[in-house]
Amino acid sequence: MDIQRIEAAAERLNGHARVTPLLSSPFLDEIAGRRVLVKAECLQHTGSFKYRGARSAVSALPDAQRKHGVIAYSSGNHAQGVALAAQQFGISAVIVMPSDAPRMKIDNTRALGAEVVLYDRMTEDRDAIGTRLATERGLSLIKPFDEPEVIAGQGTCGLEIATQAAELGVTKADVIVCCGGGGLTSGIALALEARAPGMRVRPAEPQNFDDVARSLASGRIEHNARPTGSLCDAIVTMQPGDITFPILHRLCGPGLVVSEDEAQKAMAQAFARLKLVVEPGGAVALAAALYHADQIQGDTVIVTVSGGNVDRSVFLRALDQFGNG
Amino acid sequence: MDIQRIEAAAERLNGHARVTPLLSSPFLDEIAGRRVLVKAECLQHTGSFKYRGARSAVSALPDAQRKHGVIAYSSGNHAQGVALAAQQFGISAVIVMPSDAPRMKIDNTRALGAEVVLYDRMTEDRDAIGTRLATERGLSLIKPFDEPEVIAGQGTCGLEIATQAAELGVTKADVIVCCGGGGLTSGIALALEARAPGMRVRPAEPQNFDDVARSLASGRIEHNARPTGSLCDAIVTMQPGDITFPILHRLCGPGLVVSEDEAQKAMAQAFARLKLVVEPGGAVALAAALYHADQIQGDTVIVTVSGGNVDRSVFLRALDQFGNG
Repeated sequence: MDIQRIEAAAERLNGHARVTPLLSSPFLDEIAGRRVLVKAECLQHTGSFKYRGARSAVSALPDAQRKHGVIAYSSGNHAQGVALAAQQFGISAVIVMPSDAPRMKIDNTRALGAEVVLYDRMTEDRDAIGTRLATERGLSLIKPFDEPEVIAGQGTCGLEIATQAAELGVTKADVIVCCGGGGLTSGIALALEARAPGMRVRPAEPQNFDDVARSLASGRIEHNARPTGSLCDAIVTMQPGDITFPILHRLCGPGLVVSEDEAQKAMAQAFARLKLVVEPGGAVALAAALYHADQIQGDTVIVTVSGGNVDRSVFLRALDQFGNG
Repeated sequence: MDIQRIEAAAERLNGHARVTPLLSSPFLDEIAGRRVLVKAECLQHTGSFKYRGARSAVSALPDAQRKHGVIAYSSGNHAQGVALAAQQFGISAVIVMPSDAPRMKIDNTRALGAEVVLYDRMTEDRDAIGTRLATERGLSLIKPFDEPEVIAGQGTCGLEIATQAAELGVTKADVIVCCGGGGLTSGIALALEARAPGMRVRPAEPQNFDDVARSLASGRIEHNARPTGSLCDAIVTMQPGDITFPILHRLCGPGLVVSEDEAQKAMAQAFARLKLVVEPGGAVALAAALYHADQIQGDTVIVTVSGGNVDRSVFLRALDQFGNG
């Protein structure tokens, strides 16, 4: 994995992925005690950064292989990204999704033309299901994070951050990234290593699912106790990937951990101050910047808002309970 | 008023106003029966397009005059725009606001450093109050729409639409603009006349407050029966302006009129499909594109989402009642 691979992905994504804006609000700066720049990936196609990696990986397949179709396993955001990328290439997509994924994500994945196969997160192994279906039908498996072309695609978000921050005169900052398996975090870290070496990339995770923070602290891959059970499930994985962890370990940290209440408070702030709809998992980096300011260094902090695919009831509850800051 | 004035405003706004994204969703396209491109001005500084015109007008004042401060009368969005522009120039701002303006807009205007003077919309004349205060204190009055430098500032939104649409290969489309006094609509129309003459600009208004649509139909300035009383109050004025109307009459129409329910349905769609927080008045153009498709021509329609400053309770009600499409 290197910057050339990310640049190649950026070329393939040019004209397809959206260049998302870097937003800000004086009201957020006041809470955080420093300037807060928000990379609004919830405005990416399909409502999350995942489209970048999905389109990167699907577009990198050889034509002869791609035409047989693709398969992915995902709690929802990667699913939608792969479904849209496949639709754009006119190929079939099978998506293996947990049966308890947010309804909106399942519906959207189907509406984007994919065949959805549901599984039980507690009793079944999505990797095994994915591999079996891929073999049976000749589909190419598009992994959600532990795959170089996916990491390269997510890294294009980092290229944009480097350019947009430089336009604002910012070359040195903590860059806090919502982190599950580490695809977005490692991609951004590789891009910034080359383009904005004054930045320090730090993963943000929800409480009790801080496998990456603990892995960075111990220097080896650590696991979560449970595979699910967080309001921030969109970014919960059991452990960082075999490809992403060495990158995270070399370039990132220390990790930041936020509570579910803090994630919801950040959702309410994004509503009021940025006019953005953010899902709980997509709000953990902003929550870290706003409510763990003492763990952050520098005059400016950059955060990703990684997704906005939230069921209405979850969003309403966050605003209802935490809408007054 | 001509394109040179808009270009001059664009130069003054460069590096200050945000270039807002032109968003889309296949789900909105399906409802509208054509491609829908959404100019997301709710992501502009202060949460609405009004910052463009305010910063344009404040920056166009001679230094010797500007230093005495500015005054504006506004139901909220123009207020915040003027307050921020004044703060950025380090000058004082007095804002005359109706006492029934959304709480968030009053609070934000104060938080941006402005002195807020409240008045009763039903019994007092905001123009008279503004003029008196301006004279007493030597403040420059920044009118909300009927002022060339304000129109020029709003017109920069049109320059961006022309560029962003051309990048997508779109040079011909109905461009539907949320319309109150006509500042944004006339500014965009002037910009597109010069830069994208294949576009047709059409104002969108809420039912019972369709003074512009009726004025365009009759060829002379028509009034609303009431000054207030719409959920979409942010874009309600008694009549189009003396400067804006001739521009609207020459370049725009026919107008589109939507119900409050349709505006709220559009808010719910913007939540689900665009991940944007939109205020009722800011949703009327999108509502027209989605629910009055038979009155629109062409394969592509462009709409402005003009603001996102909505009180939480109003937003929750819209999602609650109209969240299932």
